[in-house]
Amino acid sequence: MLCVLDLTTDAATLTAALVDIESVSGDENTLAGLVEDAVRGCSSLTVQRDGNVVIARTERARETRVVLAGHLDTVPIADNVPSRREGDVLYGCGTTDMKSGVAVMLRVAQLVGSGAIDPRVDLTWVFYDCEEVESARNGLGRIARTDPASLAGDLAVLLEPSGALVEGGCQGTLRVAVRVPGVRAHSARSWLGVNAIHASAPVLSRLADYLPREVDVDGLTYCEGLNAVGISGGVAGNVIPDECTVTVNYRFAPDRSEDDALAHIREVFDGYELTLTDSAPGARPGLDSSIAAEFVAAVGGEPRAKLGWTDVARFGVLGIPALNFGPGDPNLAHKPEEHVEVQQVLDAETALVRFLS
Amino acid sequence: MLCVLDLTTDAATLTAALVDIESVSGDENTLAGLVEDAVRGCSSLTVQRDGNVVIARTERARETRVVLAGHLDTVPIADNVPSRREGDVLYGCGTTDMKSGVAVMLRVAQLVGSGAIDPRVDLTWVFYDCEEVESARNGLGRIARTDPASLAGDLAVLLEPSGALVEGGCQGTLRVAVRVPGVRAHSARSWLGVNAIHASAPVLSRLADYLPREVDVDGLTYCEGLNAVGISGGVAGNVIPDECTVTVNYRFAPDRSEDDALAHIREVFDGYELTLTDSAPGARPGLDSSIAAEFVAAVGGEPRAKLGWTDVARFGVLGIPALNFGPGDPNLAHKPEEHVEVQQVLDAETALVRFLS
Repeated sequence: MLCVLDLTTDAATLTAALVDIESVSGDENTLAGLVEDAVRGCSSLTVQRDGNVVIARTERARETRVVLAGHLDTVPIADNVPSRREGDVLYGCGTTDMKSGVAVMLRVAQLVGSGAIDPRVDLTWVFYDCEEVESARNGLGRIARTDPASLAGDLAVLLEPSGALVEGGCQGTLRVAVRVPGVRAHSARSWLGVNAIHASAPVLSRLADYLPREVDVDGLTYCEGLNAVGISGGVAGNVIPDECTVTVNYRFAPDRSEDDALAHIREVFDGYELTLTDSAPGARPGLDSSIAAEFVAAVGGEPRAKLGWTDVARFGVLGIPALNFGPGDPNLAHKPEEHVEVQQVLDAETALVRFLS
Repeated sequence: MLCVLDLTTDAATLTAALVDIESVSGDENTLAGLVEDAVRGCSSLTVQRDGNVVIARTERARETRVVLAGHLDTVPIADNVPSRREGDVLYGCGTTDMKSGVAVMLRVAQLVGSGAIDPRVDLTWVFYDCEEVESARNGLGRIARTDPASLAGDLAVLLEPSGALVEGGCQGTLRVAVRVPGVRAHSARSWLGVNAIHASAPVLSRLADYLPREVDVDGLTYCEGLNAVGISGGVAGNVIPDECTVTVNYRFAPDRSEDDALAHIREVFDGYELTLTDSAPGARPGLDSSIAAEFVAAVGGEPRAKLGWTDVARFGVLGIPALNFGPGDPNLAHKPEEHVEVQQVLDAETALVRFLS
């Protein structure tokens, strides 16, 4: 194992070094310590450590502050550590999600700390733990609750994999259980009962017929989705079932609040008993701010809407416009064959440096 | 415990004695032995014992033979043994299902053996085990496979509880799993998948809209039923499900064979993948035979169709018209408060004797 991270190498080599330090959620302590040491080695940065969260900052009294954020943890190893380079491709757990993004963050810290670049904005780096597990453990969420001032800024860039394209904001998500009641009876005398599964047909039809919105928010198009993700019902092979439950997931564009989204779902399933089981807000892309527009212009490419839920929503709640921009194909995340194109890691660093210079 | 069954008492007192001898399925040996001894004590009957099945017969060279059949076992005791008589009602496990029927069978054996009545038909009594458990253990089914000749006759009367009314034949039953496929995807990008739960809407609609037949078979009306008895689907809260399975139970009138019934279900669910999970034939009531007509006339009341599945189907398979006729309310079967009206037990014996005389 490395005893120190060498930030003077290129971002791809640094990615490989980070991948080789296992940091499955809950076990980030070693990597967090190495990252802390590395950023403390960058002169002119102030550094704080809070659990396995490491926050570094420039304090150059610029008018604008940009937050760069990334998580240190990975999903469990799937026989894909240490990393393996084949030609122009780097394989391994976290190559995409998101140690290549963390490598780019660290490279920028090195360039700023060494004076190689003099950024026109103040910068905050947030390295955090437990993104790949239940939301309650999320390190960024913890800091947002306990020390939101340390996350303050005019734009947050989350270096989650986005194919090195700008993906703005994120969609919200909520889940409800739609319960359809019936009356139990013996199936040989079914007319004495009311079949809850049959009575669920209109629920499924409303889902099948539902036309999800495509919404323009701050210039990006968000495609919503309303889907059954579970259904269960039945008592025994000779019993008319007295209950059927459909679990529905609504992914909603960030023009809707959680309350708005739930009210909409209540309309869709008017007449049925609903129980909200979980909910998380979306985040507007905020690409209409001048700093975000400058970011988009500097990194190039056509911005698109982020369609999953990501930690940008935690910045959205704090009123900070946030976007996703990082190397790696998000569709490869969490897969044993996870890999990243070396050139995309280098390009992401170059793009970020172009924005800061 | 009694060491001998006294068949000279009235049928209700005999029912109480039978209830007091526990005979939960698989544990019928004691009761089967006492029944064997009792019918061997009836002169002029030939008796055979096969496991816990006891078969007794008259051999009087009558033109017609009637089979009286009943099971010796009960569901597990629910703090309702020994029996308890309150006024005109006898409480206890098996009072309805079906030790009162067995008592009536034994009373008829005593009356025939003693010469008190001289029946105009030959009679076969079949007392059997393991009716309340899985079909493979059923004693009547075993004899039907290994020694069907011993069940031969022109009419079978199963003394299962029917409120002392004639319930003709029984419905068939089959179950199929209807599988609806989909394509898995992340629920934030649902348009990349095909939602198998949504795609099940037409299956549930067909069930909800299905008009079950009411079929006249040999003069009785059978009300069919087609019902979902189970549904399951779903992978995770953020995944478009790639499979949904609806389990359907079809209760069909005895004008349809199992093959006919399955063909019908394939028509109803045309376009879907079906798997037959279990099937049992119905039984025609055979009330159009002269001996059955005589039975109905003798016992009185308006015959009705049996809507559950019962062991009469085992006679149906052997080509023997079969009906249900026994004391007790079938809706009380298997309940802790199981009970029978004493008068109904006595009346059932009287009705059967009227038919035989």
